[in-house]
Amino acid sequence: MAEKKEKKEPKEIKENKTAKTTKETKPSAKPRTRGRGKAKAKPSIKVIALGGLEEIGKNMTVLEYGNDIVIIDCGLAFPEDDMLGIDLVIPDISYLAKNTDKIRGIVLTHGHEDHIGALPYILKQLNVPVFGTLLTLGLLENKLREHKMLDKVRLHTVVPGEKVKLGQMMVEFIHTNHSIADAVALAVHTPAGIVVHTGDFKVDYTPIDGDIINLQRFAELGSQGVLLLMSDSTNAERKGFTMSEKTVGKVFERIFEETPRNRIMVATFSSNIHRIQQIINAAYMYGRKVAIIGRSMVNAVKTASELDYLWIPPRTVIDINEIRNYRDEQLVIIMTGSQGETMSALSRIASNEHKQVSIKPDDKIIISASAIPGNEKSVFRMMNELVKRGANVVNGDAEDIHVSGHARQEELKLMLALTKPRFFMPVHGEFMHLSCHRDLALSMGMDKKDIFVMKLGDVLEVNKNEAKITGSVPTGQVMVDGLGVGDVGNIVLRDRKHLSQDGLMVVVVSMDRENGTIIAGPDIISRGFVYVREAENLMDEARKVVLDALLKCEERNVTSWNYIKGLIKDTLKNYIWQKTKRSPMILPIIMDV
Amino acid sequence: MAEKKEKKEPKEIKENKTAKTTKETKPSAKPRTRGRGKAKAKPSIKVIALGGLEEIGKNMTVLEYGNDIVIIDCGLAFPEDDMLGIDLVIPDISYLAKNTDKIRGIVLTHGHEDHIGALPYILKQLNVPVFGTLLTLGLLENKLREHKMLDKVRLHTVVPGEKVKLGQMMVEFIHTNHSIADAVALAVHTPAGIVVHTGDFKVDYTPIDGDIINLQRFAELGSQGVLLLMSDSTNAERKGFTMSEKTVGKVFERIFEETPRNRIMVATFSSNIHRIQQIINAAYMYGRKVAIIGRSMVNAVKTASELDYLWIPPRTVIDINEIRNYRDEQLVIIMTGSQGETMSALSRIASNEHKQVSIKPDDKIIISASAIPGNEKSVFRMMNELVKRGANVVNGDAEDIHVSGHARQEELKLMLALTKPRFFMPVHGEFMHLSCHRDLALSMGMDKKDIFVMKLGDVLEVNKNEAKITGSVPTGQVMVDGLGVGDVGNIVLRDRKHLSQDGLMVVVVSMDRENGTIIAGPDIISRGFVYVREAENLMDEARKVVLDALLKCEERNVTSWNYIKGLIKDTLKNYIWQKTKRSPMILPIIMDV
Repeated sequence: MAEKKEKKEPKEIKENKTAKTTKETKPSAKPRTRGRGKAKAKPSIKVIALGGLEEIGKNMTVLEYGNDIVIIDCGLAFPEDDMLGIDLVIPDISYLAKNTDKIRGIVLTHGHEDHIGALPYILKQLNVPVFGTLLTLGLLENKLREHKMLDKVRLHTVVPGEKVKLGQMMVEFIHTNHSIADAVALAVHTPAGIVVHTGDFKVDYTPIDGDIINLQRFAELGSQGVLLLMSDSTNAERKGFTMSEKTVGKVFERIFEETPRNRIMVATFSSNIHRIQQIINAAYMYGRKVAIIGRSMVNAVKTASELDYLWIPPRTVIDINEIRNYRDEQLVIIMTGSQGETMSALSRIASNEHKQVSIKPDDKIIISASAIPGNEKSVFRMMNELVKRGANVVNGDAEDIHVSGHARQEELKLMLALTKPRFFMPVHGEFMHLSCHRDLALSMGMDKKDIFVMKLGDVLEVNKNEAKITGSVPTGQVMVDGLGVGDVGNIVLRDRKHLSQDGLMVVVVSMDRENGTIIAGPDIISRGFVYVREAENLMDEARKVVLDALLKCEERNVTSWNYIKGLIKDTLKNYIWQKTKRSPMILPIIMDV
Repeated sequence: MAEKKEKKEPKEIKENKTAKTTKETKPSAKPRTRGRGKAKAKPSIKVIALGGLEEIGKNMTVLEYGNDIVIIDCGLAFPEDDMLGIDLVIPDISYLAKNTDKIRGIVLTHGHEDHIGALPYILKQLNVPVFGTLLTLGLLENKLREHKMLDKVRLHTVVPGEKVKLGQMMVEFIHTNHSIADAVALAVHTPAGIVVHTGDFKVDYTPIDGDIINLQRFAELGSQGVLLLMSDSTNAERKGFTMSEKTVGKVFERIFEETPRNRIMVATFSSNIHRIQQIINAAYMYGRKVAIIGRSMVNAVKTASELDYLWIPPRTVIDINEIRNYRDEQLVIIMTGSQGETMSALSRIASNEHKQVSIKPDDKIIISASAIPGNEKSVFRMMNELVKRGANVVNGDAEDIHVSGHARQEELKLMLALTKPRFFMPVHGEFMHLSCHRDLALSMGMDKKDIFVMKLGDVLEVNKNEAKITGSVPTGQVMVDGLGVGDVGNIVLRDRKHLSQDGLMVVVVSMDRENGTIIAGPDIISRGFVYVREAENLMDEARKVVLDALLKCEERNVTSWNYIKGLIKDTLKNYIWQKTKRSPMILPIIMDV
């Protein structure tokens, strides 16, 4: 199927080279050249990253030419450890909000959360058309449906090879390989030159769908002249070449062969359709039925098979409630939870809280993933629980049952060699990844001044002669907590941190504002500080200490409530620190009666 | 020096074999045999782990024979992610507290935190004599001094090869290799047989102090007959043999050779005296001065060099304030912070908050350690900061600048082969480590029923004929928070967790208890929930909703304060959830005026 799509490409490219792009470029370029001096004649394009630099996730890049803005991707990031209670993080788009009339559309490279996950939030502010491939938009539609906004947004399906005119920019979608099907890179043809954005990619010579990354097109663009390359840096620190997805299938087959009598369960990322295809293939080959569990896994499999990205042999998939009708050796269960996420299917199975599945001794459990940094401990904890229940667990760190979706150094060099960019900007990664990627380009002979390791919000202006950072726009991490988008900031987080460490003590006292006499209280209530029933003495003493301080105020007829509050806070804080070496948050409340 | 100590061993062993042990054993064994039936004649020893099983850290094992108890190690564990605000975790010793009169002493295998860190807390409850090697006690003394209890405890220095009689048990200290100097295994000679506890160990044929683990003694014990082996499982999942500490020194020399012009900084564990020795050696070889920073590093170096475990060439170490007098290529700085700990020297340097050291471009920074599980993200974050400031950073995951202190599979098999134990109990590790270690023993032909993968608190009774789990004693995680030991439990932690996720709202209202009329309020104060200045509407509405509910109570003359509090809680909770999809903790306070 994918091959069919790709066939459109040559025609479109030809069209582009001879007609569309040139047609679009010339008229706008000519008047400029005429009206101004020679040095100023070169049209420039602005490139601004609102996410994805010096961080993993939240990928979002802005291309601006004249009065036109094209946005590449709109992803979310998962909260850092210190963002207590935060559900997810999205980019700060205040720059875009000020330039709404310029925005011609959002183009998507693929359907991973870190590339499409912020769209439900951003589209509420910027309702602009969205362009993506079939599977990418299929996954996006699931999200938009959950946010009850599917009917409000304009989605346009594109096929790899297609070009879309967005103002003076023409965006071309180029087939790539990645850990999700239907991933594309982008070549943005502008009057200033061609900007190539790889999206996330790897080079897979034996991909599951038979469709190798379109190396020819990158080569053609290289011949034509690429002004700027933005390329995926996620694996820039890793030597060599990322293995083909197909190698994982071979390992599945071996494990299935070696496990003739037991049940097999496989946990992987729900979006890795090709991985799921290979598990289903192995199950079919060994005459096993497949059950799917975990909400996102069920949704992804449904969407991918409806859109023909997943081939399910007839009578292979069964409902999870049917597993009781089969013997262990007839079953494979595919599920979410490869990262040890608390509510995922595999985690619930590990803690024996799953309704339909509980571990039997010698169940074979394959965790077909690597632990994402920060998840190591929860994955390990889950594996321990599974082994304790008698399961036989293998994971991607120990066995070859996982490959990355990102290009390693040799592939990154291939991309640089094919596109031969005039300027280069590493994207997608922490500073170390970006700077390793820069070093790769340097090792291939690129000039240091032509490489831009940028910060979020930096405005890079590029034309055929030069590229330079000319300014910056606001950027940041907008935190989403429940329905609140951006209403939790540093003060709230600082309080949550404080509360999480030592809890709090509330001191309430009723006073007469006129003369500062105490009418009731002080009462002290604590939470998260100490188990009160076993600390009655401490609490009684604390109350006394505060009361003494208040009585002294009363004697002196103090009526400044701010003063009294400060006094309560300091008195109690010192007392508690001295007694416990802890610093709970202290909240003095005075009621005017 | 260590070699000198070891020389005492043969003499002592002989003494033991012919005299001491037998002398101790016979008298007590005979009456038993006489008085009872043949089956009951065999004396048994009880083994109980109070820490170190199904967990990393908090190692503590109890050996009990008749009326005598010997405790092996007394370590702490670092808090789990969900133990908010907790400083450290120590074992539950309620079983020991009930049997204080039986305890003959605590014997230490080495000076790491997970083996000695709980002593300042436990010794406050059980003031029993402590036995350990010179460096182990040196490090312990530093701790006890900080807790102002150095003069209250009885410390007894032993040398490897020495035996100590503790009641009917005779504890023999056997030299081993580990990532700290002066580590020992223990052979506990009891009337029931010999129990060998390896402590943490590896087999290093080229150790820095020249002193190979005493393989001969383990072999002799094996010939003599070992009843039970308890052996370190930390690396039981890893194939092969852990590399010698000396290999790290070679890499240091290469890096020093390749870095002729820049400053070198090395971060490592402060207790790894041999690692520090090798860094100092490399510095001396290349004519560099060494400065030491980080409190625990300064203390460890001081203790180790005072006790002659560290050889510092004359005029090599300088004060950190002197570094300004030297050129970059003349300097090495050794420091703490290899795990990215927030307040450590290297972390403060990374965030440019260190008083004496700030990064210069091309400073060479060697992180001579692996990230301990759970620390990956903070190490990576720190490395990113250092690279951003222009430093050149290498770490133990990428280069051969770190080796583990724990035996891998081939070494573990060697230990099993040398000691040929009748029964085997894997210790020190998560369940997966213990069960891997069991599999190793099985692969060597041990019988499944002779291997005990135990849980904390399980009582294993062992005699020459059989071993079985006969009961269990209380165990657990005692949490230390500030001065509080064990006063923070699950309720407090649950509240901290709740507060950390969505903050809290306090509702205060003054009422007349007689008739339930509202005298003042309700007032609502929130923390960690929302930035109030930008959410005034929400807070006003919330107040109204609560007031409406209270007015209805007033109409009905409700005077049950519990009812009113419940009503405030439910009303506000529902309102807030509906508006924000958040669940702050709600604290209703009624003041009786």
